Amino acid sequence: MTKSRNEIPRATVTRLAFYLRELQQMHRAELANVRSQSIAEKLGLKDSQVRKDLSCLGTVGQRGVGYRVDELIQNIQHVLGTDRAWNVILVGVGNLGRALTGYKGFGEQGFRLVGAFDSDPKKIGHKVGGLVIQDLGSLASFASVQAIDLAILAVPATAAQSVLSVIEEANISGVLNFAPVAVRPSQAGRTIVQEVDLAIELQRLAFSVVR
Amino acid sequence: MTKSRNEIPRATVTRLAFYLRELQQMHRAELANVRSQSIAEKLGLKDSQVRKDLSCLGTVGQRGVGYRVDELIQNIQHVLGTDRAWNVILVGVGNLGRALTGYKGFGEQGFRLVGAFDSDPKKIGHKVGGLVIQDLGSLASFASVQAIDLAILAVPATAAQSVLSVIEEANISGVLNFAPVAVRPSQAGRTIVQEVDLAIELQRLAFSVVR
Repeated sequence: MTKSRNEIPRATVTRLAFYLRELQQMHRAELANVRSQSIAEKLGLKDSQVRKDLSCLGTVGQRGVGYRVDELIQNIQHVLGTDRAWNVILVGVGNLGRALTGYKGFGEQGFRLVGAFDSDPKKIGHKVGGLVIQDLGSLASFASVQAIDLAILAVPATAAQSVLSVIEEANISGVLNFAPVAVRPSQAGRTIVQEVDLAIELQRLAFSVVR
Repeated sequence: MTKSRNEIPRATVTRLAFYLRELQQMHRAELANVRSQSIAEKLGLKDSQVRKDLSCLGTVGQRGVGYRVDELIQNIQHVLGTDRAWNVILVGVGNLGRALTGYKGFGEQGFRLVGAFDSDPKKIGHKVGGLVIQDLGSLASFASVQAIDLAILAVPATAAQSVLSVIEEANISGVLNFAPVAVRPSQAGRTIVQEVDLAIELQRLAFSVVR
C-alpha cells in the first residue's frame, strides 16, 4: 500500500535514494525490468527489505518479471520530491565547496547549482564551476529574483551559525550543512537543516570495523 | 546499563558521534559538566533521546550536575573505537579527494591521513595535503610496511569496483566510498564498505523539505 510521506521512516528514504541510483544505472543500461533480489544483491541488503521498502511506494512487482525500472524510478523520485528540478546555491567556496561545484551527482539527480557565495573579497568575482562567486551580502537580493530551494553550507565552523541566519532571511527551505558544527535555525520549521559531517562518516565506519 | 557494541543501533552510533562533536567543543571551552538537556537543545533532539543514548555507554548523569564532559568524551570514543589513532589512505586524488585531504575534522577525530594514491601518471609524484601522490600499483607494498586501517575511495564510478579489489588485497579493514556507485567486497566480512553519496544527502534533504 502506498504510504504518505509522513509515514516513511528516514532509513527507508535513504535506502530508496540508493535504489534510485541503482535503477538509474540499469535504465542507462537499457534494462526494462528488475527483480528486488538483484537490487538487494547490489546493495548488500536482504530481498525482503527491498520488497518492504518498495511497497511503501505502492509499487508491486510482477511474479517472474519483477518491477518496471522506469516506473520505479518515477515513483521513487516522486516520493523523494526530485521529480522536479531544485535550485541550489553554494555558500562558502573553500576547498570542499569548490569540489562540490564539480560533483556530477547533484546535476544527475535534478539539483541545479545556480549561485556561489563567499565573504572573502579575494574570491568574489572569480569563477567556480562556471559560476561567478558573489558576495554573501548579495544573497538576499539574488534570492528575491531567483527561486532558490536549497543551500549547501560549506563555511568554517565559526561562521556557520551567522551565515545560516543570512540563508534563513533569504527564505531558503533547506540547508545541507557541511560545517563541522551543529547549527540551529532561529525559527523552528522555517528552514530545515541536515548535517553532513565527513569525520562522523569515518567514525561510523570505524565503529563497524571494531565491532 | 552498558551495552555491547553489537547491541547499539546504527542510528544511536551516528547520534553518539554528533554528541562527541558537541562535547569536544565544550571541552575546548573548558566546561566540566553538561546536562543532557543542553546537548539535546544544541542538536534539536529530545532530552529523553539523549539520555537513552548515553545510557548505552553505562554513563549516568548526576542529579543537578549532569555528566562529566571528559568522561563522556572518553566513553563515546571507546564505543566508536576512536580512542586510538587510525591510519587512513586516500585513493583517488580528484577534486573531492583533494578537498578531503584538507578536511581538518579527520585529524581532530584521530584519523591520520598517511598516504594518497592515484592511477594518473600526471598526478603521481606531486604533493597533496603534504603527501606525495603514489601510484595505485604500489598500494599493496605500502600497506605491507605501514599499518593502514581505512581507505577513503574517491575515484570515478567506473573505476570504483576494481580499485576496491586492490584495497581488499592490501588487507584494509574499512572503506568509505565516495564514488557514486555501490561497490561490493569480493569476500563478505573481510573489508567493510560504507557508502557516502553527497547527492543522496541532498535527496534526503529534499524529502524533508517537501514533507
